[in-house]
Amino acid sequence: MTELIQRESLGPVTRLTLNMPQSLNALSDAMLAALSDTFATLAEDRTTRVVILRGAGKAFCAGHDLKEMQAARQAPDKGAAYFLDLFTRCGAVMQAIPALPQPVIAEVHGIATAAGCQLVASCDMAVAAEGTRFGVNGVNIGLFCSTPMVALSRNVPAKVAFEMLTTGEFIDAARAREVGLVNRVVPHADLSEATLALAQTVAAKLSAAVKIGKRAFYDQIDLGLAEAYAHTAAVMQENMLWRDTAEGIQAFIEKRAPDWADH
Amino acid sequence: MTELIQRESLGPVTRLTLNMPQSLNALSDAMLAALSDTFATLAEDRTTRVVILRGAGKAFCAGHDLKEMQAARQAPDKGAAYFLDLFTRCGAVMQAIPALPQPVIAEVHGIATAAGCQLVASCDMAVAAEGTRFGVNGVNIGLFCSTPMVALSRNVPAKVAFEMLTTGEFIDAARAREVGLVNRVVPHADLSEATLALAQTVAAKLSAAVKIGKRAFYDQIDLGLAEAYAHTAAVMQENMLWRDTAEGIQAFIEKRAPDWADH
Amino acid sequence: MTELIQRESLGPVTRLTLNMPQSLNALSDAMLAALSDTFATLAEDRTTRVVILRGAGKAFCAGHDLKEMQAARQAPDKGAAYFLDLFTRCGAVMQAIPALPQPVIAEVHGIATAAGCQLVASCDMAVAAEGTRFGVNGVNIGLFCSTPMVALSRNVPAKVAFEMLTTGEFIDAARAREVGLVNRVVPHADLSEATLALAQTVAAKLSAAVKIGKRAFYDQIDLGLAEAYAHTAAVMQENMLWRDTAEGIQAFIEKRAPDWADH
Repeated sequence: MTELIQRESLGPVTRLTLNMPQSLNALSDAMLAALSDTFATLAEDRTTRVVILRGAGKAFCAGHDLKEMQAARQAPDKGAAYFLDLFTRCGAVMQAIPALPQPVIAEVHGIATAAGCQLVASCDMAVAAEGTRFGVNGVNIGLFCSTPMVALSRNVPAKVAFEMLTTGEFIDAARAREVGLVNRVVPHADLSEATLALAQTVAAKLSAAVKIGKRAFYDQIDLGLAEAYAHTAAVMQENMLWRDTAEGIQAFIEKRAPDWADH
Repeated sequence: MTELIQRESLGPVTRLTLNMPQSLNALSDAMLAALSDTFATLAEDRTTRVVILRGAGKAFCAGHDLKEMQAARQAPDKGAAYFLDLFTRCGAVMQAIPALPQPVIAEVHGIATAAGCQLVASCDMAVAAEGTRFGVNGVNIGLFCSTPMVALSRNVPAKVAFEMLTTGEFIDAARAREVGLVNRVVPHADLSEATLALAQTVAAKLSAAVKIGKRAFYDQIDLGLAEAYAHTAAVMQENMLWRDTAEGIQAFIEKRAPDWADH
Repeated sequence: MTELIQRESLGPVTRLTLNMPQSLNALSDAMLAALSDTFATLAEDRTTRVVILRGAGKAFCAGHDLKEMQAARQAPDKGAAYFLDLFTRCGAVMQAIPALPQPVIAEVHGIATAAGCQLVASCDMAVAAEGTRFGVNGVNIGLFCSTPMVALSRNVPAKVAFEMLTTGEFIDAARAREVGLVNRVVPHADLSEATLALAQTVAAKLSAAVKIGKRAFYDQIDLGLAEAYAHTAAVMQENMLWRDTAEGIQAFIEKRAPDWADH
């Protein structure tokens, strides 16, 4: 039996590959459960410092599994309970990404549509191959991408999000970088290498600092200015009191490499 | 008597033209009342799927009617009650745009200044002619654009908004797109056609899906992540249970055009 | 004794120069105290209409004084009390900038790193020399830039901020403008002149209008739409009732220069 998600350990980087290329890596019930389990495992994984999420085959991810959704209409309630549960489970998977201790980088190629685009928006960073197309195109089949909108509208300007959602039209990788949906755009041939290089750059940092910083990033983002500063001042105090941070700063002053227990 | 706002029905698209070119379509009391009435009518209009808002003559809209405002100073309270009422009425018109069930597209040419720029920012999308200039230039005459700032600062980065507000300087259409104030920039000769094409693209979608999606867009934008997902999961559940959405998804799976009762 | 902060009066513009070039204008305890005192004085200064903040020597500001921070570890509590106090004092200085009645423009050259980048982000506007590099690179020495993140993430898109914070990599001035961290980029030879020109543009406005507008900008930015409009409608009413605003509008109508008591 093929795994729905392939997991590779590349030193401190764990690379996850959505592996249902025949369905463009659709977020079926099984795929959502596999993502949920994988993220739960990673949350406890002390050796993984950075996570890469990519898709096998022609596309990153084309969103929900429409055939599975249609099948749910056979239930006595016409799928009502299933649909609410599905979107709740999917939303929980998306929210698990910022909640993970490790940064998660989307490695995107082909298309990233609907909940697949939401997955890109939900990752902490994203690297895209030239030629990748991004869309929240559910409106084309009568299903407005209301949950993908949550992640998208927290990444890109309001009018850009509104246009994508109501026209169903795609934007290309260059425009995606321009509006804040992805960090870097590289030729397709360089995608894996460039994403891995970004991951390794982050993995080379003091992992405790990255972990505390990622949590603080999302904790402070919706606070008022005074609360955000009060919160992060305490975070920096804690950070300063670590042995490895004391050593990191001292090594910088002395212009030498730090001797980190963390590495 | 000339209508202050011309209304055209272009199939499912309703095009509104501010029609006081001699005052650069200033938002006089009469114009604000006409907009308020028009939006109230559109809110109940089941045949209009998309709204275009444009201006007759040389400009989209140059903001408030300054002569009318100066005349109000003759009152015993020197205009105090009138001014608060004016800005409250104007703010209500601006807030009526995101509250409308249909997407509203600004079709912008010439200049969009002060409350005219606010009108662009308040629309869900905007298409601008090359050469259009945008400004919140009230500061030049001693009246800081504090209410236009509300809409502007929810469209563009903070430092960009601050510069426009305190310098009174204009930005051109290309910069307006770069910072998120408009979606598309086209040659002036193509403006009406390009805006109508965008409107027709949205009008061709399932109107109930666009309506539920637009409302959800603004409902979720200021919520925390968990609340936003809880809200939109219920929206998507509702969306899934419509007959036309079931048909839209089935038609997509079967690679045929949907048979929508909505169309 | 050399002053830590040089203060020049250029007509209505006050220019502050951080003056510890040998430490790249590090935000030492003494420098933070000097900034705090200077801002407190400016808050009461009726003649200063705009403030420019720049750095002497090779750089704008390289962040905290690391040697001073390391020295604090000698205390019985290993610096715990000092560190919390330091980040609290630093956060208070950053928050004093939006709280000042006058707009504050950062004039940036060389590097702006860690709390130095935070200082740029905290200013109302920023002009950068070509070649300037911006980074929140504390992560490189094990100290995640959690407090700089507060200002940065309110200036630039989420994924851009996250990348800068976790990679420690620098962005150049052109990219800084693209993402919203600075307003203008000019050749290094033109930096002081261009910044002063921007300051003089703002200083030429009615200062009471700029003051009320700046306060309203930050007061409304985190409010819901209805509350933001209610607040700013009252601000505009107040603004309209000033003598100088009445004159400014009248002069505009009569196509003449205003006779402002304020100037």
